[in-house]
Amino acid sequence: MKLVIVGGVAGGASAATRARRLSESAQIVMFERGPDVSFANCGLPYYVGGEIQDREKLLVTKPGLLRQGYRIDVRTRSEVVAIDRTQKLVRVRNLADATEYNETYDALILAPGAAPWKPPIEGVDAPGVFTLRNLEDVDRIKAVVDGGAGHAVVVGAGFIGVELAENFLRKGLRTTVVELQDQVVPVVDREMTTPLAEALRSHGATLLLQDSVEAIQKTPDGLTLRLKSGGALEADLVVLGVGVRPENVLAVQAGLEVGPRGGIKVDASMRTSDPSIFAVGDAVETREFPTGRPTQVPLAGPANRQGRIAADNVFGRRSEFRGTQATAIVGFFEHVLAATGQTERSLKRDGVPYYKVYVHGNHHAGYYPRAKPLSIKLLASPETGTLLGAQVVGTEGVADRANVLATALQARMTVRDLAEVELAYAPQFGSAKDPVNMAGFVASNVADGLDKQVHVEDWDTDLSSRAALIDVRTPKEFAAGAIPGAVNIPIDEIRERLSEIPRNRPIVVHCQVGMRGYMAGLILRNAGFEAYNLGGGYKTYRLHHPASTDHA
Amino acid sequence: MKLVIVGGVAGGASAATRARRLSESAQIVMFERGPDVSFANCGLPYYVGGEIQDREKLLVTKPGLLRQGYRIDVRTRSEVVAIDRTQKLVRVRNLADATEYNETYDALILAPGAAPWKPPIEGVDAPGVFTLRNLEDVDRIKAVVDGGAGHAVVVGAGFIGVELAENFLRKGLRTTVVELQDQVVPVVDREMTTPLAEALRSHGATLLLQDSVEAIQKTPDGLTLRLKSGGALEADLVVLGVGVRPENVLAVQAGLEVGPRGGIKVDASMRTSDPSIFAVGDAVETREFPTGRPTQVPLAGPANRQGRIAADNVFGRRSEFRGTQATAIVGFFEHVLAATGQTERSLKRDGVPYYKVYVHGNHHAGYYPRAKPLSIKLLASPETGTLLGAQVVGTEGVADRANVLATALQARMTVRDLAEVELAYAPQFGSAKDPVNMAGFVASNVADGLDKQVHVEDWDTDLSSRAALIDVRTPKEFAAGAIPGAVNIPIDEIRERLSEIPRNRPIVVHCQVGMRGYMAGLILRNAGFEAYNLGGGYKTYRLHHPASTDHA
Repeated sequence: MKLVIVGGVAGGASAATRARRLSESAQIVMFERGPDVSFANCGLPYYVGGEIQDREKLLVTKPGLLRQGYRIDVRTRSEVVAIDRTQKLVRVRNLADATEYNETYDALILAPGAAPWKPPIEGVDAPGVFTLRNLEDVDRIKAVVDGGAGHAVVVGAGFIGVELAENFLRKGLRTTVVELQDQVVPVVDREMTTPLAEALRSHGATLLLQDSVEAIQKTPDGLTLRLKSGGALEADLVVLGVGVRPENVLAVQAGLEVGPRGGIKVDASMRTSDPSIFAVGDAVETREFPTGRPTQVPLAGPANRQGRIAADNVFGRRSEFRGTQATAIVGFFEHVLAATGQTERSLKRDGVPYYKVYVHGNHHAGYYPRAKPLSIKLLASPETGTLLGAQVVGTEGVADRANVLATALQARMTVRDLAEVELAYAPQFGSAKDPVNMAGFVASNVADGLDKQVHVEDWDTDLSSRAALIDVRTPKEFAAGAIPGAVNIPIDEIRERLSEIPRNRPIVVHCQVGMRGYMAGLILRNAGFEAYNLGGGYKTYRLHHPASTDHA
Repeated sequence: MKLVIVGGVAGGASAATRARRLSESAQIVMFERGPDVSFANCGLPYYVGGEIQDREKLLVTKPGLLRQGYRIDVRTRSEVVAIDRTQKLVRVRNLADATEYNETYDALILAPGAAPWKPPIEGVDAPGVFTLRNLEDVDRIKAVVDGGAGHAVVVGAGFIGVELAENFLRKGLRTTVVELQDQVVPVVDREMTTPLAEALRSHGATLLLQDSVEAIQKTPDGLTLRLKSGGALEADLVVLGVGVRPENVLAVQAGLEVGPRGGIKVDASMRTSDPSIFAVGDAVETREFPTGRPTQVPLAGPANRQGRIAADNVFGRRSEFRGTQATAIVGFFEHVLAATGQTERSLKRDGVPYYKVYVHGNHHAGYYPRAKPLSIKLLASPETGTLLGAQVVGTEGVADRANVLATALQARMTVRDLAEVELAYAPQFGSAKDPVNMAGFVASNVADGLDKQVHVEDWDTDLSSRAALIDVRTPKEFAAGAIPGAVNIPIDEIRERLSEIPRNRPIVVHCQVGMRGYMAGLILRNAGFEAYNLGGGYKTYRLHHPASTDHA
């Protein structure tokens, strides 16, 4: 068996090592266009900011180990420029000397990755305008930053944009983030990104939402950016983080099928439309778990697992990729946002029935010092209660809950299962009722009709004009900030003050996080009112209506 | 409906609030013998040490909220001394004035908890000898500590013992821990407790294993403890943390069924042998998940959920407790040990077929600063691959992995599922191949016969006398510490040095964590050797054979 692998980073390197483990005798050749194999793409922004100081650390597996330990014929600076499927050979250009040669294969694994997208704007190729994909890119950006740049503009507030913003700020650069959407991290639901947007601003970044760069001009002093909103920005460097496109040229030229968004089509065994050719990683169109819909999700975890699975199938081991649930996490200084599965936006777009709950809890027992708040949004199927997606935002314990919820989603757990999940509890590590359990409790209560919830958008678009709003928190909490129009009747007094509550219209009750509001809704409905609990309470209201937008 | 609840801490308080949510009209009376309801037992050790400074914080739910917000008739200092099941009434003693009265019930929920066990040793009731259950206990212990105690002895190195030891050390006390077993935290497999035992010693505690206190004598200066090993200890205070016994007197006297270890017997709806009486929390015998075997696990999480379930069933809502998987976690300064499900010891004891793997990884990407090592032990069914139990030890990220594994166990996931779990990855939060995935990979490889493993105990008891041991790490790693008898042939050279390896006996190869050893095993078997990989490599060897026991 002669296995040829195109691309030596996450998926390619995983395929190569797995292949060697499955066959000591196979000939394994791995071509990589760049000078480095198996480097840590996800670490690149942190090398810019100096959190990762040693460039060598970004080289996860050294070519030496691959060559000696695994006997993989690693050829860097070698670009595969064509595939001849009939002859089963690839055409390779040695970038060092521009010579070309053919290499035959029995099986071929394509792991070419995805390239940062360069929007077709004037001046996009000017010096000082960068994208970030590999170590060469990061060297160039770092040189400009360390050379005394004063102002960085990041175009796109996705994962890489937010990470770059943190690292430019760490280096003391004035930092502006320009994002076309009306939120940061557009793959997550907007309200869950509020804490991150506020953090960007409080750490000194300028955040320009619903705006874009229309043209870039090189000036004697640096760059001038013309914005869609009409303004202009002076910048010393610009990094484009507006998405990636699958590197599919080789596949397309070879006649392999690609999807509408360019991803190389593969089956669950990672096999392309040619049975001798597999493809893995950011270049492929894969399936969304659990819906099975086609998707393209450039993430390192799935890429690594796909590499392993492709190698299995090359050597006749049945092994299938289940699809990706797009589990992702982004940090910005102490702030963390994580998501798994569907978002409310994607469910709406696809017309999938869902319901949602918000819980706000602490990352460990509130009675133990340094408990930090976190918020969970849970999306579930109204028919089955199956978890459809989850998002978590906070500072501490975010990855932990996101990982539990990602595992639960993978296991097709229901909200009732989440209520019963037995997590580790000691006061410095969690709570007897963890926020994940609480999310399960609340979602079960909603499903059972015990907790009749309305949401902030229901209030904003409809109920505010025809319902009364009662804030059942303490007078002290109410005084510290309340929803416009709310009347304060604390939960401890509500049973005695029913006469103050109008009977001719719906009542929306709310508290801080939704627990006392749940009790208040029960009390009021028991007393004959049409009462609803505002899901997630004041804290959720504040995610939708950040304090900075107050009209008190 | 008149619901009477006996006990106002975790299970009782959860039952009471759930009951009110299910019925606004029910009469709910909650009796608590002590002065406090709903206090944070799990926080008590940290109040001793001063991590939790404000005693008020330990009162999780104030009686005021329960009385006004939930209209629960909370009666503290009120001991239920008898149940008359025929008349459906309880006899209550008001501890404030020693009067007694009857209270009728339609439904009764028993949540009396468990009492610390006092071993029958001479002097166990001497002043200065304590157990730790409630705020009154902690006040007494804290008074002695803050009064200038110099030496504390903790009897029992279970969860509470380890936590108390940390807090005594924090207060500057000389601290000795006496444990009957040959390990700390005896509910976890011994080798996984090695880092914790080493931490106890390195933080200055004296750890006396396989020893016990045979007698305690009050002396003018404090206490003198006579040890089974023959020695004696002078101490200013002694805390007994040697387990708890269900508070079952009330139940037994009322003729309710109890199990062989004293736990009140309940069905999945938390109903006792009397259909009007439910029982929850540390006093009950519950089921082990997923085996269904009877067990008694005093943990706050299950107690809270059981309270909720009992209330559901009181009000006719079908709701069942699934059993407990004994998920637990303990911290000792920066060190953390967590476990869920079965241990190797319990599987052996019960004759359940299992296999195990160890992985040693980092809590986040190794290329990002401050990555901390952690170790996972996974126990799985050889027939189905279903996860049976898991243990995690390290400093950072331990709770996170334990929670994912606990969720996986609850979902009856297999080791192949773990390999595919899609966790959140950015370099400061995880790895593209998280240690949980790695555990799944390794266990799948073992199940597939790709990674033929032997374990340290196989080496110790059998193979060391008849097999050759090859350490495939680098010469530098080998020089820094190696298994006695090992010969160093680095993985990069092994293919060229096959002639140095004996063909007349089994070969055990090992590396640092098991990865290079896996590759080396494949190479050697391909070359015709009978070769095995030592599971988890040198790091696992060191868990079994701590460096302190070296005979180099």
